[in-house]
Amino acid sequence: MLKINKNYLQLNESYLFSTIARKIKAFTDEHPDKRVIRMGIGDVTRPLCGAVIDSLHDGVSEMASADTFRGYGPEQGYDFLRGAVQGYYASFGVNLDMNEIFISDGAKSDIGNILDIFDVDNTVLIPDPVYPVYVDTNMMAGRKILFMNANADNNFLPLPDESVKADIIYICSPNNPTGAVYDYDGLKKWVDYANDCGAVILFDAAYEAFVAEDRLPRSIYEIEGARRCAIELCSLSKTAGFTGTRCGYTVVPSQLVFDGVALNKLWLRRQTTKFNGVPYIVQKGAAAVFSPEGLVQVRENIDYYRRNAAVMTAAFDEMGVWYTGGKNSPYIWFKCPSDMKSWDFFDLLLNEQQVVGTPGAGFGRNGEGFFRLTAFGKYEDTVEAMERIKKLFATL
Amino acid sequence: MLKINKNYLQLNESYLFSTIARKIKAFTDEHPDKRVIRMGIGDVTRPLCGAVIDSLHDGVSEMASADTFRGYGPEQGYDFLRGAVQGYYASFGVNLDMNEIFISDGAKSDIGNILDIFDVDNTVLIPDPVYPVYVDTNMMAGRKILFMNANADNNFLPLPDESVKADIIYICSPNNPTGAVYDYDGLKKWVDYANDCGAVILFDAAYEAFVAEDRLPRSIYEIEGARRCAIELCSLSKTAGFTGTRCGYTVVPSQLVFDGVALNKLWLRRQTTKFNGVPYIVQKGAAAVFSPEGLVQVRENIDYYRRNAAVMTAAFDEMGVWYTGGKNSPYIWFKCPSDMKSWDFFDLLLNEQQVVGTPGAGFGRNGEGFFRLTAFGKYEDTVEAMERIKKLFATL
Repeated sequence: MLKINKNYLQLNESYLFSTIARKIKAFTDEHPDKRVIRMGIGDVTRPLCGAVIDSLHDGVSEMASADTFRGYGPEQGYDFLRGAVQGYYASFGVNLDMNEIFISDGAKSDIGNILDIFDVDNTVLIPDPVYPVYVDTNMMAGRKILFMNANADNNFLPLPDESVKADIIYICSPNNPTGAVYDYDGLKKWVDYANDCGAVILFDAAYEAFVAEDRLPRSIYEIEGARRCAIELCSLSKTAGFTGTRCGYTVVPSQLVFDGVALNKLWLRRQTTKFNGVPYIVQKGAAAVFSPEGLVQVRENIDYYRRNAAVMTAAFDEMGVWYTGGKNSPYIWFKCPSDMKSWDFFDLLLNEQQVVGTPGAGFGRNGEGFFRLTAFGKYEDTVEAMERIKKLFATL
Repeated sequence: MLKINKNYLQLNESYLFSTIARKIKAFTDEHPDKRVIRMGIGDVTRPLCGAVIDSLHDGVSEMASADTFRGYGPEQGYDFLRGAVQGYYASFGVNLDMNEIFISDGAKSDIGNILDIFDVDNTVLIPDPVYPVYVDTNMMAGRKILFMNANADNNFLPLPDESVKADIIYICSPNNPTGAVYDYDGLKKWVDYANDCGAVILFDAAYEAFVAEDRLPRSIYEIEGARRCAIELCSLSKTAGFTGTRCGYTVVPSQLVFDGVALNKLWLRRQTTKFNGVPYIVQKGAAAVFSPEGLVQVRENIDYYRRNAAVMTAAFDEMGVWYTGGKNSPYIWFKCPSDMKSWDFFDLLLNEQQVVGTPGAGFGRNGEGFFRLTAFGKYEDTVEAMERIKKLFATL
């Protein structure tokens, strides 16, 4: 008799975004005349840049002719794209071997799938608040999870607690949902701690392209010792608007050796067995992101979102509201006014000013009393939304 | 201290295709004047059809404008493609609910990933010879594996052995590597057996488009009772030349309930947590496969490969060689002449006639003494290769 994986029964259903959608619908049904501005979901709105579009069309055209048609490709990605990623890392001083770079269909897939190569019997350390995928994927496997508190006291950037021993550590910087970014010193503490424990760090760098200040690292490999403890997962979703085009990369350095086994070799085995690579057309488009023309164009889109973020941080600065993010991140995470709870503030903001954000409580216990807005909307909407938010705060 | 998944250390390294590549290279280095014809790897050679190319270009163009840009899509696929797959199934009499269809990036990914929703403590029944992914993915999880013998005595179509109890059963029909195809009676025996045991059948239908005879099922759901025991995994790789474009679909019927839990719900949870959907552009191209124009065009490509297969079966018929496949499959699986072993015949065929195939021994114990050729090459090459093979057989 087939037995299901009962760990799935322990998962919490995620009602966060469905509850938000339901509340918006209820409001708009009742007030069809009011215009709702959505700053909740972390999806991009700018189209793919010209260099990527041209390259995608080229890729499609190649598939139309037997001479240039591409069938099965290497599971770990074509060298032309791995080389482009290698060059991108080199541009900020990180030298990687091409075999350390695995092209993926996005960070979310690999964040889940990388766990395949680890034993169930490992202790996982996860920050709270958090991107829910870190928690759910480990619960599915039945791993023991410890949480570390991210809160206003540590500016949502927790540091290692020597009394806690963990084997798998999640760090997301710039952070989703808080927008907080570790500096070199902070990441160095994590790298040293991981090397002391013999732990692996799963470093989620999906928002690295938003790092604007030189004093902040974009890759964990800018930290000495990281090649012995860290896997880095990154994505073109936010860098180049690939949320619906699906391409990213995972870096597994050759020095990552545990139990006498190289993780790079295990991950290659996992990918060649359970994955068949990213579509050639998409890899062709992704390579254009790293072309001189593409780098300029994706930067223009990021600058557009940064301008939104600047409008938002300026408004919160003006109001004297406590927040993290916005400066090196597309997320602004702020304290709800008057010690309100996240969902109460959500309802108030929707009902009074028709702006939608994401209640911090949806990301974990420490998110209660906080609220997330994203800079991925239209500029005019962002300006309008902040005016509305200022009006609301003035009444409280 | 991080512990790796030690099950990976039990895996056999697959040297099959790398050994073939090395032998070809050694031969061509020594004989640069000889033209080698490759009929080994199961990859397509015909380009994507016009309807798909046009639709892919349309998809790319939509991503270039903010009004039509697509960001995150539903993890389980867009309704326009799920509806197209639903219509395709309906065309041969199988009625599915749209929620039972999950769009994937290919059958290989889902064949591996579907195991996430099952307990490690299940017994797996796998035919030998076999597509190695079935074995490796279960070894990675540490499941107990039983093999069933496919051989000349059962025409490489083993039937259930009531004395064996299994929980997860793999069936691939038309089969890779043997090309053998179950008829309705054969599949009915498997469905009844699975329902008796409370087992799930993972039915790999990747080659269904090659079924030419009405007496043979293209989907396991043509069999009564299958909706209570079978998950079907299919792909556009062979149907429409998507080996490098990556799109398939997995069907999880709502009636699949084990331990009181619907597998459909578990798989949805797995996919929404560890997957972010197939690229919009690719889904747009895939939908064109099922358009009236697309169906005609992909059929033309399949007919091209079928013509190759007919050349091959005619030659083996003429020589009186025992084989399976070819008639409803792109693979021909034949008995090596003079009781030769698979690798000995491989060497002989390469050295004497410069034709490359795949030694059956590479697919399992029962593959020894057999040999696989594929019909995915160019027509002229296929004709030439069969002439060469006839010459070789005449000398033995």
